[in-house]
Amino acid sequence: MTAQTDRYPVPDINSLPGDMKDMLLEVQEKSGFVPNVFLKLARRPDEFRAFVAYHDALMLRENSLSKAEKEMIVVATSAVNGCLYCIVAHGAILRIYSKNPRLADQLAANPAKAEITPRQRAMIDFAMMVAIDSAEIADSDFEMLHEHGFTDDDAWDIGAIAAFFALSNRMANLSNMMPNEEFYLMGRVPREKKKG
Amino acid sequence: MTAQTDRYPVPDINSLPGDMKDMLLEVQEKSGFVPNVFLKLARRPDEFRAFVAYHDALMLRENSLSKAEKEMIVVATSAVNGCLYCIVAHGAILRIYSKNPRLADQLAANPAKAEITPRQRAMIDFAMMVAIDSAEIADSDFEMLHEHGFTDDDAWDIGAIAAFFALSNRMANLSNMMPNEEFYLMGRVPREKKKG
Amino acid sequence: MTAQTDRYPVPDINSLPGDMKDMLLEVQEKSGFVPNVFLKLARRPDEFRAFVAYHDALMLRENSLSKAEKEMIVVATSAVNGCLYCIVAHGAILRIYSKNPRLADQLAANPAKAEITPRQRAMIDFAMMVAIDSAEIADSDFEMLHEHGFTDDDAWDIGAIAAFFALSNRMANLSNMMPNEEFYLMGRVPREKKKG
Amino acid sequence: MTAQTDRYPVPDINSLPGDMKDMLLEVQEKSGFVPNVFLKLARRPDEFRAFVAYHDALMLRENSLSKAEKEMIVVATSAVNGCLYCIVAHGAILRIYSKNPRLADQLAANPAKAEITPRQRAMIDFAMMVAIDSAEIADSDFEMLHEHGFTDDDAWDIGAIAAFFALSNRMANLSNMMPNEEFYLMGRVPREKKKG
Amino acid sequence: MTAQTDRYPVPDINSLPGDMKDMLLEVQEKSGFVPNVFLKLARRPDEFRAFVAYHDALMLRENSLSKAEKEMIVVATSAVNGCLYCIVAHGAILRIYSKNPRLADQLAANPAKAEITPRQRAMIDFAMMVAIDSAEIADSDFEMLHEHGFTDDDAWDIGAIAAFFALSNRMANLSNMMPNEEFYLMGRVPREKKKG
Amino acid sequence: MTAQTDRYPVPDINSLPGDMKDMLLEVQEKSGFVPNVFLKLARRPDEFRAFVAYHDALMLRENSLSKAEKEMIVVATSAVNGCLYCIVAHGAILRIYSKNPRLADQLAANPAKAEITPRQRAMIDFAMMVAIDSAEIADSDFEMLHEHGFTDDDAWDIGAIAAFFALSNRMANLSNMMPNEEFYLMGRVPREKKKG
Repeated sequence: MTAQTDRYPVPDINSLPGDMKDMLLEVQEKSGFVPNVFLKLARRPDEFRAFVAYHDALMLRENSLSKAEKEMIVVATSAVNGCLYCIVAHGAILRIYSKNPRLADQLAANPAKAEITPRQRAMIDFAMMVAIDSAEIADSDFEMLHEHGFTDDDAWDIGAIAAFFALSNRMANLSNMMPNEEFYLMGRVPREKKKG
Repeated sequence: MTAQTDRYPVPDINSLPGDMKDMLLEVQEKSGFVPNVFLKLARRPDEFRAFVAYHDALMLRENSLSKAEKEMIVVATSAVNGCLYCIVAHGAILRIYSKNPRLADQLAANPAKAEITPRQRAMIDFAMMVAIDSAEIADSDFEMLHEHGFTDDDAWDIGAIAAFFALSNRMANLSNMMPNEEFYLMGRVPREKKKG
Repeated sequence: MTAQTDRYPVPDINSLPGDMKDMLLEVQEKSGFVPNVFLKLARRPDEFRAFVAYHDALMLRENSLSKAEKEMIVVATSAVNGCLYCIVAHGAILRIYSKNPRLADQLAANPAKAEITPRQRAMIDFAMMVAIDSAEIADSDFEMLHEHGFTDDDAWDIGAIAAFFALSNRMANLSNMMPNEEFYLMGRVPREKKKG
Repeated sequence: MTAQTDRYPVPDINSLPGDMKDMLLEVQEKSGFVPNVFLKLARRPDEFRAFVAYHDALMLRENSLSKAEKEMIVVATSAVNGCLYCIVAHGAILRIYSKNPRLADQLAANPAKAEITPRQRAMIDFAMMVAIDSAEIADSDFEMLHEHGFTDDDAWDIGAIAAFFALSNRMANLSNMMPNEEFYLMGRVPREKKKG
Repeated sequence: MTAQTDRYPVPDINSLPGDMKDMLLEVQEKSGFVPNVFLKLARRPDEFRAFVAYHDALMLRENSLSKAEKEMIVVATSAVNGCLYCIVAHGAILRIYSKNPRLADQLAANPAKAEITPRQRAMIDFAMMVAIDSAEIADSDFEMLHEHGFTDDDAWDIGAIAAFFALSNRMANLSNMMPNEEFYLMGRVPREKKKG
Repeated sequence: MTAQTDRYPVPDINSLPGDMKDMLLEVQEKSGFVPNVFLKLARRPDEFRAFVAYHDALMLRENSLSKAEKEMIVVATSAVNGCLYCIVAHGAILRIYSKNPRLADQLAANPAKAEITPRQRAMIDFAMMVAIDSAEIADSDFEMLHEHGFTDDDAWDIGAIAAFFALSNRMANLSNMMPNEEFYLMGRVPREKKKG
């Protein structure tokens, strides 16, 4: 049993509008399961579509952040927000992209102990500032990024991911979103074992 | 001068994609000016469109929250996030919807002193929980809402607005978004005087 | 209705000691109304007189802080203390002295976004230190002021205003002091319009 | 040596205005020394006089709080503000009034462990609310006091002492006010021993 | 690379006193590796022995807490202290004892979302109180435990584990203790697969 | 009366295991009384023995910290943890070792005002970091110590004392450990007076 009652039952996929149904079936086809974030948010189709569009605009955008680095930001900021779903689900994705099975657990526990470069640490520090105390962002925060080769446009990318997951973490906590069981193990063991 | 350098110059409206240009011109036609949030976010068209879609899904949705109540949530949660733009811009909208020229300043300063009903106070308390400490949301928070006649679906609406502005406040603080001068006075004086 | 019961009804002006009655009538004559701070505190004549004397000793003192700068300190520190009365009443006075109708709202929302000089920002930072964490005041805080041309005597003036409003804010919150309606609009519109 | 430079040398008593000089000599006559709070604040005669008047209006007022209870409030709230001077000086006075040589150290360390009655604990809890988070004072805080027989007027007295020492603590921290050596031992040993 | 320099190299096992050498070899024999906590603390033999004795007195003690429940306390309180080593190492042990491969990740991220009973939630809440704010422990905290059938002796057991890991977490953070790679995967996959 | 019920009665010394009984009688012989920490913890002999062993390993260890400096760390970190017992008992020991009757009260109230050297202030700052926010310990904290001549081994000693009292403070708060009356006055008056 869980400590918070689940108040928002997920809709039947077949009852959803066509575009959403198609998308969810495609995800299921590709991943073998439908991540709960989609099922939870699907009860509000307009919010669902905007959420997915915003997510993709930030996470699929080609920029100077690698796919793994974007997920590092998600895991570290989701941890300070106490968002179980995002830590576990994005931790899985981070393990896959980074090919480091320890990195997600490290970033969730304490970024100061994570196996990351000083440049990545600056990126995480900036993201944390946006996550925790955006009112106090100052020129010195941008300058710290510049020292590691990041531009102001990179700062926007880093900060916007932290800002988007400020929203996402709150929706997951509000809706009692639980990670799919698959995420917990994903990326921890070599591929062939998992399929075997 | 301001304490934070403005690093993200706004694009020329004429350089924007057609749909965005049309939208901004329509807003200007209707309001007499283009709110800076649109100009700041327009440098990232995909993010802009998702932001507007998400905002409208939440703020234009017909539900048991009045237009003024939705804006109360925005002002109170933006204040704890130290977001000047949202306090001033949505404070203006709240004054217009509520026809109470004091309410926005009260909610920004201290919701405990605001001229609101106990039901609205419960709504604000729940929104604050989502804004500040969503990890600790518990059944008792939902029960407090139920005592004032709110449903779980209303709780989603209240929480989702707080969550969306958690994102919006952080983007405004990151991008040094300053309120248009028009917002400061809007809704404080009777219409005819303002036009006279 | 308000969320906190008003437990301290204001006394009839005619029932007050002569010196206080004269002072309140003079204020009414000059301003057109009696600020609620005087009416609330008047139930305790000895406290009232000491409060007014202390206020005047700090706020009317001729020193290197302009009248507007003193009020900047009041608004910014009252905001971190969540004091509605002082934010609104002193926000009005700040608008009048500074002739900037946006400044009070900016300082109340987030000093980092306020239209102030670096010298004034240092002044606000020092005042905030006194307001929030005076136990940790260190030589480096004084040195920051010196870098902007402030003396140790100026530091006393800045800090003493923050300290006095630490008291004032707490009394306003305790006694459920509400701002007079007049303060909300004062200084936002040019003089002639307001009278017209 | 101390960690904070002492920037505000105390004036020569003979250089002070007559009323202040007389008062300080009287205190010295009576106590055997002049508490440093008077010497530090004396450099600003107008602030000095208002401070003393405010202090006396609250601390000498006859009401349902005993002299010892008033000092309990001072010690407990000064501790959360990290004010060495007030903890030590008012701790001495509390020991004398309460005839309990342990009480001041207990209240400074942790009110939950102090040898006080449940009524006094409620008084301290209310004072702490005013000291730490006055913006959130609610009807329930007053009701807690009522349950222990306190009136709303008592609540004012309790809160006003906490509010005044919010000011006093900040001035002591700002001005690097150090307790007179005499205070540390005062009230810890029976009178005859001290004089012997 | 890591963000914190590793300042405390581990000693050669063969250079250690006989009792410690024997113990470490026995652990290695049994587990297949020596947990880094032993290697890090071994540079201080007296502290090492007291640490192990204290740990065993609490964690091996037979009482009304199951082995899994003791580890739940360790994981949840280590998470609020940001202790990577203890989260990962004791998370592994918790997975093995509880036979629930998700539980450790849930407790580290947000106990409110963990698959635990209300009784276990009360246990965790009490442990968190000890970990975060022991000065405020009150009768009501013990009563909450009593409502779930815990005795005062159980409260000691719960609190003492939280208190011991307050020490342990700080030593791990201070000494830059990193989890052995083996811990990350332990208990996540069925035994036969891991050995296969 | 005290605010927290005392739930853990102390055992009869004669009922204790021989080694513990001998130790307590020896302490009584030497000090004239048995400090309550021993009586409270004695109900759990295994925990008692490990506690004493750990305490002695840290506090009796010969290193570059003087006996007084070790106690400074204890008093300052116990104060931030709100541990009455440790502040009063170790405050007494600090007064004796330092021969400064004011120092313990200063460190408990506000280390920034204590009569200590800059080197000792750095030591206290590092200890506070371990006590309050060990997850964020960084190379810069060690470098601050190095600037004052401390080695990494000294950093371990400083941090380990802060870590051990993180445990000790929590056990004292949990078990409602009250300081023996003797501690309050100890070290405040010259020896001959105390014995006379």
